Amino acid sequence: MPSSSLILSRRDLDFLLNEWLDVESLTKRARFTEHSQETFDAVLDLAEQIATEHFAPHNRKADENEPRFVDGKVELIPEVAEALRVFADAGLMAGEFDEEFGGMQLPHVVGQAVFAWFKAANVGTSAYPFLTMGNARLLLAHGSREQIDTYVAPEVEGRWFGTMALSEPQAGSSLADITTKAVPQDDGTYRLSGNKMWISGGDHELTENIVHLVLAKIPGGPPGVKGISLFIVPKFLVNADGSLGERNDVVLAGLNHKMGYRGTTNTLLNFGEGVHTPGGQPGAVGYLVGEQHKGLTYMFHMMNEARIGVGMGATVLGYTGYLHALEYARTRTQGRPAGARTTASTDVASPMVPIVQHPDVRRMLLAAKSYAEGGLALGLYCARLVDEEQTAETQEERDRAHLLLDMLTPIAKAWPSQWGLAANDLAIQVHGGYGYTRDYPVEQFYRDNRLNPIHEGTQGIQSLDLLGRKVVMQGGAGLALLGETISATTARAAGTQWAGFAADLDAAVARMGSVTATLWGTGDPDLTLANSHVYLEAAGHVVVAWLWLEQALAAEAGSTDFHEGKRAAARYFWRWELPRTRAWFDLLESLDRTVLDARDAWL
Amino acid sequence: MPSSSLILSRRDLDFLLNEWLDVESLTKRARFTEHSQETFDAVLDLAEQIATEHFAPHNRKADENEPRFVDGKVELIPEVAEALRVFADAGLMAGEFDEEFGGMQLPHVVGQAVFAWFKAANVGTSAYPFLTMGNARLLLAHGSREQIDTYVAPEVEGRWFGTMALSEPQAGSSLADITTKAVPQDDGTYRLSGNKMWISGGDHELTENIVHLVLAKIPGGPPGVKGISLFIVPKFLVNADGSLGERNDVVLAGLNHKMGYRGTTNTLLNFGEGVHTPGGQPGAVGYLVGEQHKGLTYMFHMMNEARIGVGMGATVLGYTGYLHALEYARTRTQGRPAGARTTASTDVASPMVPIVQHPDVRRMLLAAKSYAEGGLALGLYCARLVDEEQTAETQEERDRAHLLLDMLTPIAKAWPSQWGLAANDLAIQVHGGYGYTRDYPVEQFYRDNRLNPIHEGTQGIQSLDLLGRKVVMQGGAGLALLGETISATTARAAGTQWAGFAADLDAAVARMGSVTATLWGTGDPDLTLANSHVYLEAAGHVVVAWLWLEQALAAEAGSTDFHEGKRAAARYFWRWELPRTRAWFDLLESLDRTVLDARDAWL
Repeated sequence: MPSSSLILSRRDLDFLLNEWLDVESLTKRARFTEHSQETFDAVLDLAEQIATEHFAPHNRKADENEPRFVDGKVELIPEVAEALRVFADAGLMAGEFDEEFGGMQLPHVVGQAVFAWFKAANVGTSAYPFLTMGNARLLLAHGSREQIDTYVAPEVEGRWFGTMALSEPQAGSSLADITTKAVPQDDGTYRLSGNKMWISGGDHELTENIVHLVLAKIPGGPPGVKGISLFIVPKFLVNADGSLGERNDVVLAGLNHKMGYRGTTNTLLNFGEGVHTPGGQPGAVGYLVGEQHKGLTYMFHMMNEARIGVGMGATVLGYTGYLHALEYARTRTQGRPAGARTTASTDVASPMVPIVQHPDVRRMLLAAKSYAEGGLALGLYCARLVDEEQTAETQEERDRAHLLLDMLTPIAKAWPSQWGLAANDLAIQVHGGYGYTRDYPVEQFYRDNRLNPIHEGTQGIQSLDLLGRKVVMQGGAGLALLGETISATTARAAGTQWAGFAADLDAAVARMGSVTATLWGTGDPDLTLANSHVYLEAAGHVVVAWLWLEQALAAEAGSTDFHEGKRAAARYFWRWELPRTRAWFDLLESLDRTVLDARDAWL
Repeated sequence: MPSSSLILSRRDLDFLLNEWLDVESLTKRARFTEHSQETFDAVLDLAEQIATEHFAPHNRKADENEPRFVDGKVELIPEVAEALRVFADAGLMAGEFDEEFGGMQLPHVVGQAVFAWFKAANVGTSAYPFLTMGNARLLLAHGSREQIDTYVAPEVEGRWFGTMALSEPQAGSSLADITTKAVPQDDGTYRLSGNKMWISGGDHELTENIVHLVLAKIPGGPPGVKGISLFIVPKFLVNADGSLGERNDVVLAGLNHKMGYRGTTNTLLNFGEGVHTPGGQPGAVGYLVGEQHKGLTYMFHMMNEARIGVGMGATVLGYTGYLHALEYARTRTQGRPAGARTTASTDVASPMVPIVQHPDVRRMLLAAKSYAEGGLALGLYCARLVDEEQTAETQEERDRAHLLLDMLTPIAKAWPSQWGLAANDLAIQVHGGYGYTRDYPVEQFYRDNRLNPIHEGTQGIQSLDLLGRKVVMQGGAGLALLGETISATTARAAGTQWAGFAADLDAAVARMGSVTATLWGTGDPDLTLANSHVYLEAAGHVVVAWLWLEQALAAEAGSTDFHEGKRAAARYFWRWELPRTRAWFDLLESLDRTVLDARDAWL
């Protein structure tokens, strides 16, 4: 069994939650009064234990034995169901939900820290509860009382799992072009027909029912995304008493075979193709969630949460890779300290040293640490904003949290997807040839993490969201709020050893503001948006630099090795990473047209 | 069967060889007088055809059916042996070798272009001839006449394959610490014992014999790398008439199971463990190559060539990934041109467009093109230097070529290993979710290419070679020569549309010189070398920017789409990539100690 210290750092989680984000202060709020530092610690202990004992041990096995399509069903290795049963039995599926549903009413920030253990231990198995919890939260927000009673309770108990079914084979990121049709029936239900692609957890025998949340178009509605509605389409229809009824016409059409993330079944689903005819009628039975044509708005509720969650997954995959590389670097001996060493002058009389003593190995570890811990700070900060958005005392505070979260969401998704993967790349490199073999887990983390820049909105989609929407929304209020929030941090750094870092960060924030104005001053949205990816990269590095300054300040009083490590990583991010933004901003400022003007035929 | 246009671009090869490197001029030299533009074209046609028909088709199958260890032997899919038979029968193994061995005496630059087709089509299968050709060239340079007659001829005919056996389980990159022992015998032979790790092509049934070139230490010799000698250790001993004799005591101990590059058997080999006792004596029979204790020098002859070859492999894997992504982007329709588009305002009445019309997709393609074609230019330029080194008219020209090649070798290995992989990453991203599935080849290219930053000297090793040795050798003569060579190019850009590029490049070269002086002016080699990786990255980008300026100038007269594409990619590299060097040089100039001073316990 892998040691829990190779999965995540509890010390770091404690630092972020307690020494930095002051999570205990949340217990003063009405929703969390039953909680205390002790209850938070206890559920983190529980998560660490279950992730270590039930999730991590089958991570490789699930990779080597991907889901199989046998007789129309999905076959998984048995460890997946066992792990998820333990997870649900421990009440972890219900962690953040209301007591009404048997939940613990944990703050979201604690819930995210808890769930981070499972993603880091086994991202493939964790996807089932991840999707189910998001599905349940969407229904709680937008479903009817009856829909909540029928579907949310079994989900929170872990008896049924949920999916989100958006994409179609002909329209991946372009939801405007989906063609799945939902025809209203006299009884108020709908009949759906169409094909959905890339549906994670779309079919399996892990639970007796699966609750699909499906985007479809009601004939006669507005074109494009304005005509999209959201439906509950259960695999089995549910009787009035909650028992399972007829088989609905949702049929597994195939499985996708992926480079990584193999433990998560990824499916093509056919709706209403006539394989089953519930009630003797054609079409998959669906129940409208909320109002017609508002489906995408509701789904974005889940997608925004999913995006932050994907970012957390990318972070903790990078994080576990980093911890494995650190362990390897401390135990593997090879060569001698560099110094003036060349191959010719190596003194072989001295013993070989652990490779962590080679500066270039430390460079890789420090970089990976700064990406992994920086991403974790970003994810938990955003989760803390969710708590503020929902439970802060005043409406103004809640609105500010909402605005800042909206602004940060594309970064919280995209930055860890790029740099968590970079941490996994470095973890392989630290291992040398061994890291390239399947005898060590770091190559799987790398393959698993490569999904994250793609799903839940590619990096390109996130960049259009940030530059095309978020920084201009409400007349730039989100960008201004981010600037103010960062300034509050840099002001606190005055007179500390971090004043130089704060000055560089202030300059980067100012630059981001002026570059944003330049980009939107062109009067040519094509030119503006052709640069969106570079803008996303630059903004992401500015934000994570800020969170490193936050961590440096929070660690200022500490004198342990842990606190020294925080300072070293903060310094690394300041000196080695933040300067990257200068080249990015210079490029953006120049309004370069090379990419925009390149023609297909030239490529 | 994949189209050859998805493997490599013949148009680009023709441009690089003919419009830029003027390969035809080599036919004036004594060694190449039998050749002409027509013979070069014919062998390139042949390579394209055989790579397309015999190598590409089993690339995925070899990945899915990696070599298996069955009854002490290695089982491969039969397509590997068939492809290699066609390759050898066509005379391609012998392409660059002397007519004496049935070779074509091709220039190395043409030989590299020829072999690029095979690596791009199937890097796993190509590794066998790659290693064999390197092995044969080493023996030609340093072996005795008898050794050449015995081993080189069967290798060049493709009847026997070769390996290079350097690493040991306890000493990966640290060759000073190898412990394989070679004990001299009365008859002038040696008996070897020890274990070798990571030996590609170390065992198989593809050929009747395998010629291992093995590093080992003769007892009583100097310690460290100065006591390393080189031995020929054939799998089967060879009788005086060239027929095979007794089985030598080289035994397959295990196979490594890798993330990618699976078509290439990678082995642990045991020498002299007593499984076989040739001549009734213990130990594997070995034959000393050249003189005692000079083994590493000889092996570097092969390793330098192998490093450039690894760089070419990394480039062309990136290249084929780029071509696949371009094809996908031209045929996959999704969404509409960005413009002022937001998800909400998409006009679904208009038809979806090929995704190449989205600027962010073009950004990815243009970046991948600049990495792939830039890497190919680098690899072929270095190959051309090999020809200069060996066949230039004057000793001075040969010496200059040698010096420049020495300087460029770590870059030619490391730069494509980083950026070719980046091209593969972009190719996945262009494909979206499909790129993450095993239904498309781009995920395999990415997994395959991840080996290249590791083997034949990691990026860290290359960076120490560049900063610790190459830029200071002969009092900095290599660095000065590189600077002069680049200046000659920038001088030619005066008065053209590329004058601005040339000025930026001149500035970067000057900066590289001053930064080098700063780094070596510290008097603290630990500090100097702690920054070697950043130095390697910066130097690599400067060199490839130069080669893009070279290509831009060579393309200046052309007005076809192909030439426009060269200009667009050159401009991309100038505007988007070269500026990265500023941040790297700034960091180097600052002599930052963060990495050097970080302690193990802080990580």
